[in-house]
Amino acid sequence: MSDVVRIGVIGAGNMGTVHANYLYEGRIKGAIITAILEERVSRINEIENRFSEEVVTIYSEEDAFFQSGQFDAILIATPHYSHPRLSIRAFNQGIHVLVEKPAGVYTKQVREMNEAAEKSQLVFSMMYNQRMNPIYQKLRELILSNELGSIRRLNWIITDWYRSQSYYDSSSWRATWQGEGGGVLINQCPHQLDLMYWLTGMMPSRLRAFCQFGKYREIEVEDNVTAYAEYDNGATAVFVTTTGEAPGTNRLEVTGDRGKIVIENDELTFWRLRQSETDFNQEYTGGFGKPETWKCEIPVEGLNTAHEGITQNFVNAIKDHEPLVAPGSEGIYGLSLSNAMQLSTWTDTWVTFPIDEDLYLQHLNEQIDQSTVQKVSTGKSLNVKGTH
Amino acid sequence: MSDVVRIGVIGAGNMGTVHANYLYEGRIKGAIITAILEERVSRINEIENRFSEEVVTIYSEEDAFFQSGQFDAILIATPHYSHPRLSIRAFNQGIHVLVEKPAGVYTKQVREMNEAAEKSQLVFSMMYNQRMNPIYQKLRELILSNELGSIRRLNWIITDWYRSQSYYDSSSWRATWQGEGGGVLINQCPHQLDLMYWLTGMMPSRLRAFCQFGKYREIEVEDNVTAYAEYDNGATAVFVTTTGEAPGTNRLEVTGDRGKIVIENDELTFWRLRQSETDFNQEYTGGFGKPETWKCEIPVEGLNTAHEGITQNFVNAIKDHEPLVAPGSEGIYGLSLSNAMQLSTWTDTWVTFPIDEDLYLQHLNEQIDQSTVQKVSTGKSLNVKGTH
Repeated sequence: MSDVVRIGVIGAGNMGTVHANYLYEGRIKGAIITAILEERVSRINEIENRFSEEVVTIYSEEDAFFQSGQFDAILIATPHYSHPRLSIRAFNQGIHVLVEKPAGVYTKQVREMNEAAEKSQLVFSMMYNQRMNPIYQKLRELILSNELGSIRRLNWIITDWYRSQSYYDSSSWRATWQGEGGGVLINQCPHQLDLMYWLTGMMPSRLRAFCQFGKYREIEVEDNVTAYAEYDNGATAVFVTTTGEAPGTNRLEVTGDRGKIVIENDELTFWRLRQSETDFNQEYTGGFGKPETWKCEIPVEGLNTAHEGITQNFVNAIKDHEPLVAPGSEGIYGLSLSNAMQLSTWTDTWVTFPIDEDLYLQHLNEQIDQSTVQKVSTGKSLNVKGTH
Repeated sequence: MSDVVRIGVIGAGNMGTVHANYLYEGRIKGAIITAILEERVSRINEIENRFSEEVVTIYSEEDAFFQSGQFDAILIATPHYSHPRLSIRAFNQGIHVLVEKPAGVYTKQVREMNEAAEKSQLVFSMMYNQRMNPIYQKLRELILSNELGSIRRLNWIITDWYRSQSYYDSSSWRATWQGEGGGVLINQCPHQLDLMYWLTGMMPSRLRAFCQFGKYREIEVEDNVTAYAEYDNGATAVFVTTTGEAPGTNRLEVTGDRGKIVIENDELTFWRLRQSETDFNQEYTGGFGKPETWKCEIPVEGLNTAHEGITQNFVNAIKDHEPLVAPGSEGIYGLSLSNAMQLSTWTDTWVTFPIDEDLYLQHLNEQIDQSTVQKVSTGKSLNVKGTH
């Protein structure tokens, strides 16, 4: 391949345009944007005005785009359902793939995507830009270097995803089973659900969740969720989210044998036990006492390179085999949590991991069949999503 | 009756001695301590040295104590199981009752206590001293005056109840089904469970909980709990507690139609929406926007009169019909939450309110029967609890 990775962008909605812009402006070293696929006629004019036709070819038909031979890699920023299909098409053509979150809507399609990626040996990455956030990188480093000891509890209140009815009314596909396959879990929370996995490397053994559908808005999908999970090492987790509260909260607490860490208001604080709780408990004879605790202010350094950081890493992986920060195959973890939370609600019982992908898909299809929302047309004409 | 309320204290353990001391020192206006019932021979010497026999008569037999005619009211600070029986005995003799938390161990015995109290028309109060804490009084006032609007979510992480194994080993009755009827829920959390009711006046319609028994300590009862509750008005709640974490967290978040309030580190902060969320949502047309939020620092004034405040209120109620801050009949609410959390775990399903008191007692008795912990002698020889 040439020294420069040629990238085609699929979907020029809100996020696709962001990606196309920074590529066009040359902010990703070793990469250029050469093509855009946008099937909505209403968007074409704006895109043609934005990008020089000598640099970027605009396609409105998927077949022509894939047959162009103009790119070595694609960046997919289309509606959720189409991510696996487009990725698999690219892998079959020897094209590397960077895909927006979520990996897909149901794990069966994502597993098939992962298998195609594995077989192709191509570079496959997820746009998990929060993995580039230094505060989460620091928390992960503290956990994986065992500063916190064995993990005991995760508690994430992530309720600052406020969305008004006017947001939901802005597109017919939004917050529908057929258009998105879910609500706050599939649209707003993929980053947090990915971090629940990535920060610790742990997935639950089982989970019980309580989704409420159309609680605060006139939508058919979940807009309020409380989930409880248990892990093989004995840890438990609570995850609370909604789009219906203001101002909401974003507070992550992780506790372990060596204390607790809280991330809130973009600050990371570590209450560190001088001696591990397990050791203290074994040695202590005084009844009511507690381990000595140090409140430690942990420095968080570095820029949050966000989307551009993920894209640069993807390009470096193609050119120089740089390890991926967000391997595409890991997209299934956060999605499994999301699917499990809906499935536990629908079945009103525990969901064990790995989840039953066929059972989930069966329930999802029932929701789509029972939907009374006016259906949007399927497949190629779906709009891109408007959030990031 | 005389101008002074004569009080007998039952149980001179840790808390009973605290109560006896402030009464003896004359810190409760209009009340004097005249008698103590303490059945443990090992405690008698210390008590006799502490209190002048001309003022306080020490009894070691329950019948003699109740037949003495030396008091108008009793303050019960004995192990949990005995609270209802002792209260009912007092009501039958026309004696007012102030009882330590919890009201009892299972709601059936507490309901019977409440019925005896109601029938007697005597003054009956619970030692819910956290109701005297100005920060919770302020939160309650903000909620009941509708500053927060309709309640949407309660989230209490109350994990700073650290207890070492040496604490549990200090008494044979501790943390046993027969001795206490539970663990962190019945011993450490009664105040928070009462506040979950008292702050809002709401009880859940149903609850799903996940207790873990002897997770962190060699005990048979619960030491780690996560509970989820739903209310008739649509609100949800999460309650997380443990004795196994250090330093732990005590953070209460309450959200409503007008914003959110957080109590943490003894500070109350109100994020107030300028316009209610419901009104904003109805009027807003801009898609991604949020209601304007004001971060308000709310003054919290007044002393926390704690135990003495409750006892003074009890005495004033007897003398001057002052309204009770913590009517005894309300002890059943917090206990119902506690019972429901255990019952949901045992049955691995939802518990609806009011809870099935017979089903709970059946399960509790199974736990007692199946216990492999060396049994303590029942009834009169039980020690008083060591926490407050």
